Amino acid sequence: MTTGYDRIRLESLRDKVISAEKAADLIKDGMVVGSSGFTKAGDSKAVLPALAEKAKNEKIKITLMTGASLGHGTDGKLAEAGVLSKRMPFQVDKTLRDKINKGEILFIDQHLSESAELLHNKNLPPVDIAIIEAAFIDRDGSIVPTTSVGNSVTFAALAKHVIIEINTAVSEDVYGIHDIYQAENYPHRNVIPIVAPWNKIGRRSIPLDPNKVIGIVFTAKKDSPADIAEPDAKTTAIARHILQFFENEVHLGHLSDRLLPIQAGIGKVANAVLMGFKDSNFYDLTMFSEVLQDSTFDLIDSGKLSFASASSVTVSEACYERVFGNLQKYREKFVLRPQNISNTPGLIRRLGVIAINTAIEFDIYGNVNSTHISGTKIMNGIGGSGDFARNAYLSIFVTQAASKENAISHVLPMISHVDHTEHDVDILVTDIGLADLRGLAPRERAQAIIDNCAHPDYRDELQSYFDRACERGGHTPHLLEEAFSWHIRFSETGSMKK
Amino acid sequence: MTTGYDRIRLESLRDKVISAEKAADLIKDGMVVGSSGFTKAGDSKAVLPALAEKAKNEKIKITLMTGASLGHGTDGKLAEAGVLSKRMPFQVDKTLRDKINKGEILFIDQHLSESAELLHNKNLPPVDIAIIEAAFIDRDGSIVPTTSVGNSVTFAALAKHVIIEINTAVSEDVYGIHDIYQAENYPHRNVIPIVAPWNKIGRRSIPLDPNKVIGIVFTAKKDSPADIAEPDAKTTAIARHILQFFENEVHLGHLSDRLLPIQAGIGKVANAVLMGFKDSNFYDLTMFSEVLQDSTFDLIDSGKLSFASASSVTVSEACYERVFGNLQKYREKFVLRPQNISNTPGLIRRLGVIAINTAIEFDIYGNVNSTHISGTKIMNGIGGSGDFARNAYLSIFVTQAASKENAISHVLPMISHVDHTEHDVDILVTDIGLADLRGLAPRERAQAIIDNCAHPDYRDELQSYFDRACERGGHTPHLLEEAFSWHIRFSETGSMKK
Ligand SMILES: CC(C)(COP(=O)(O)OP(=O)(O)OC[C@H]1O[C@@H](n2cnc3c(N)ncnc32)[C@H](O)[C@@H]1OP(=O)(O)O)[C@@H](O)C(=O)NCCC(=O)NCCS
Ligand SMILES: CC(C)(COP(=O)(O)OP(=O)(O)OC[C@H]1O[C@@H](n2cnc3c(N)ncnc32)[C@H](O)[C@@H]1OP(=O)(O)O)[C@@H](O)C(=O)NCCC(=O)NCCS
Repeated sequence: MTTGYDRIRLESLRDKVISAEKAADLIKDGMVVGSSGFTKAGDSKAVLPALAEKAKNEKIKITLMTGASLGHGTDGKLAEAGVLSKRMPFQVDKTLRDKINKGEILFIDQHLSESAELLHNKNLPPVDIAIIEAAFIDRDGSIVPTTSVGNSVTFAALAKHVIIEINTAVSEDVYGIHDIYQAENYPHRNVIPIVAPWNKIGRRSIPLDPNKVIGIVFTAKKDSPADIAEPDAKTTAIARHILQFFENEVHLGHLSDRLLPIQAGIGKVANAVLMGFKDSNFYDLTMFSEVLQDSTFDLIDSGKLSFASASSVTVSEACYERVFGNLQKYREKFVLRPQNISNTPGLIRRLGVIAINTAIEFDIYGNVNSTHISGTKIMNGIGGSGDFARNAYLSIFVTQAASKENAISHVLPMISHVDHTEHDVDILVTDIGLADLRGLAPRERAQAIIDNCAHPDYRDELQSYFDRACERGGHTPHLLEEAFSWHIRFSETGSMKK
Repeated sequence: MTTGYDRIRLESLRDKVISAEKAADLIKDGMVVGSSGFTKAGDSKAVLPALAEKAKNEKIKITLMTGASLGHGTDGKLAEAGVLSKRMPFQVDKTLRDKINKGEILFIDQHLSESAELLHNKNLPPVDIAIIEAAFIDRDGSIVPTTSVGNSVTFAALAKHVIIEINTAVSEDVYGIHDIYQAENYPHRNVIPIVAPWNKIGRRSIPLDPNKVIGIVFTAKKDSPADIAEPDAKTTAIARHILQFFENEVHLGHLSDRLLPIQAGIGKVANAVLMGFKDSNFYDLTMFSEVLQDSTFDLIDSGKLSFASASSVTVSEACYERVFGNLQKYREKFVLRPQNISNTPGLIRRLGVIAINTAIEFDIYGNVNSTHISGTKIMNGIGGSGDFARNAYLSIFVTQAASKENAISHVLPMISHVDHTEHDVDILVTDIGLADLRGLAPRERAQAIIDNCAHPDYRDELQSYFDRACERGGHTPHLLEEAFSWHIRFSETGSMKK
């Protein structure tokens, strides 16, 4: 492994090396900054933290765009220091979230496939400075990214200036795990020629005009590790319902036992479902997803999963060592793409992806809220769930039926915020059971959801709501004056129970 | 023009000719029937009406799938006769709508691009009998459709049996205006090779196994004409706002004066916008839409529009004569495709479509309801609006600011049913003005919408709601206990005003 200056293979760029503090000084008040980083992977570990530090003593406010969430508490530090005036397209940080919900920081919650589109189409203000983590800079000035691709290709192409963070903790062997492709601008856009998850259609590094480079910073910090929650009774039950459903689809001849490419959202349910495949009869599985977690590599090891496509690798510390310490073993098994390719609607439909995402709550008609608590406070953001759910072959959403000692029902008369409409939701699963909504009209959906997904503590009340709404009529019967009464009761009494 | 048997060019099929009544007898209780017909164009004009007639004296219930809505009041007749147990994916009929809202008929409101997918993927029950209107049957048994393609290609491929309605009122010259293409089944689906609206990639007729034909019926009825509403003060104002917006985008260098392919929903606003282009500086415009209306052909005549792609031609009687009486003039100017191609997500994004659709109501955060009155009663259905809005280069929704002597505000604190989430809505327009929501966070969106779109009679109350909600906090501030108070007041007093 080489370190330092050897990683700047275009020698003329070597005099651009500066400290993180000097790089942070290049970022001025009012700028739009685009940074690498996707679900903690491949984020800026030097310049953005230095900016947060500097802002403790200096008023500076920026718009920050990334791939998705950042690691190392960086979003929190930036929020705390008052650096962020606007943030997009995704976050998962508690401090940042609180400030967003207080209205102190503006947040744009975007489909992860769309930020790059919006920039290319000039539907967002131009990026002043891009900060991109790299394993090394190649002789042609192009950059080899690290553990994620995110929106970096777009930032590199469109930003006026670029700061590169060379992370010497990442092996240069990552060369080749990325598939760097960008569609042409309108009106000259062509076909994206991917017909299977394993197709590689692009370059191995991100093209960059070396004249745009205003600073190169060295770091040697690893990505923040993913927190892996062990499967518990509820996630295991949810995973079991989903696997039984797949087995039945194979039995009915709807799917082969290779299934179709799988997308799995972040979190413990996704991990539990994937782990369930280990002891199943399915084989030669593939993933077309946005984040690869530990379970992906466990399934590769167990011989069940042949290939995984995504935009980042976000794994535990142990898994990180296993994968990036054995790249010769894994490199033909996965690929990292720009998020406007990993999540692009046309590919998701073309490949026939089976999408599994987590809901915060859903209603009796199958509308899903995956972002807002009580209709007002954002949790994380829609992420890629909309990209996948809308265009999937099958769109599955999961959540626990009830939580906080059953004070909260996650199956509701009406949800307080809609991210995914009933048109885009095929299967709903809780620890109680699975509702197969395909081919059902709203009133049939309601009965299937109440019968199969609701927690027993809430089933009668849901049924009563539905029955009384049906008496009043309508294609999608509701009692508007009562629709949010469960949320209101919860905020008043701490429980949704009467 | 030939008539009758000459139109059955595969001679072995000539002995399949039967009466509409006999054909209707082939449809049995419990069957799933797939019929041609898309926004009144190319629908079944003999067999379905005969079925409605027959059902007056006989209990028979079917599931009916079509392309989109039917003409000639057929949906109403079927509903009246009690034939329909389930209907999908779209309808616009008053009688049918009433029965859906009473819960007497089940309706599945589907994205128009998806019904064919769901059938191919066996996510819906198989089609027993297809009824397809044709201009003629070719020598190889394939069928040349008439004024729409809709889901007919899928019905012909998957139905166990097929009834063909040869409509001798349609000229055989329509041969060549259709581009019949179907993507491969999973997991072998390939690229759909369309990169511009005018690309033709398929056959000129719908492949059909002649052994599946169980009846051929002759008709000579034209499509129900479209009702063309003359532009009024409000639609003219909306169209003016949109055209000014486009002019400004060109001025800013975001778009060229060819714009990008346009999709326009049905109705008078779409017509008014398109008519506005007539006296504009735009040129060489194209459409990538689902329905072509009178305005499309007016724009072609005026030399402004070069090409239009859709799934049907739904025009007034005069326009019908003009187009289908002069096909040599128009045939190189438009094409009709299956609706899972005209509306496919990947093509809409690849082409960079500018989508203009009508809302029933929208809320201060830019969520759109295009289907339900007061959250419960369906109007028509989501149609293709979701296919286009979600994947468009720009997604524009329009509605009047207020109606019924301003007793109804169409801009609301919270909408009662969500079809399009704020993530998928870029521009909102009412007769009052246009709100450009690109790059705005929810609280900014709210202020832009209140300032630009709300009717003055309701502006202060909206502002008050928003201000009081902000005091309570949240990324998307709401007062859940008050969110639907406008709808509730309207149902109690007939007005949303306090
Ligand atoms: C939806 C999502 C937040 C669920 O994450 P999770 O960690 O499984 O969620 P939990 O069930 O633990 O709920 C999160 C919190 O919200 C709380 N909560 C959930 N529903 C609630 C409700 N109706 N009322 C009040 N609180 C609620 C939970 O109690 C929990 O609170 P805590 O952190 O204080 O324990 C997460 O999957 C997400 O952000 N999804 C959107 C992005 C996405 O889907 N991307 C997919 C592609 S990667
Ligand atoms: C949304 C849609 C119904 C609007 O159609 P329109 O004819 O322009 O609608 P109008 O403004 O005349 O409203 C329709 C009716 O609903 C009523 N209405 C609208 N909003 C209402 C509200 N909030 N409360 C009560 N009634 C309301 C209107 O008063 C009108 O009633 P009327 O027929 O008794 O006069 C129509 O565009 C549609 O069906 N869209 C969905 C499908 C689609 O967008 N396809 C696009 C691709 S083709």
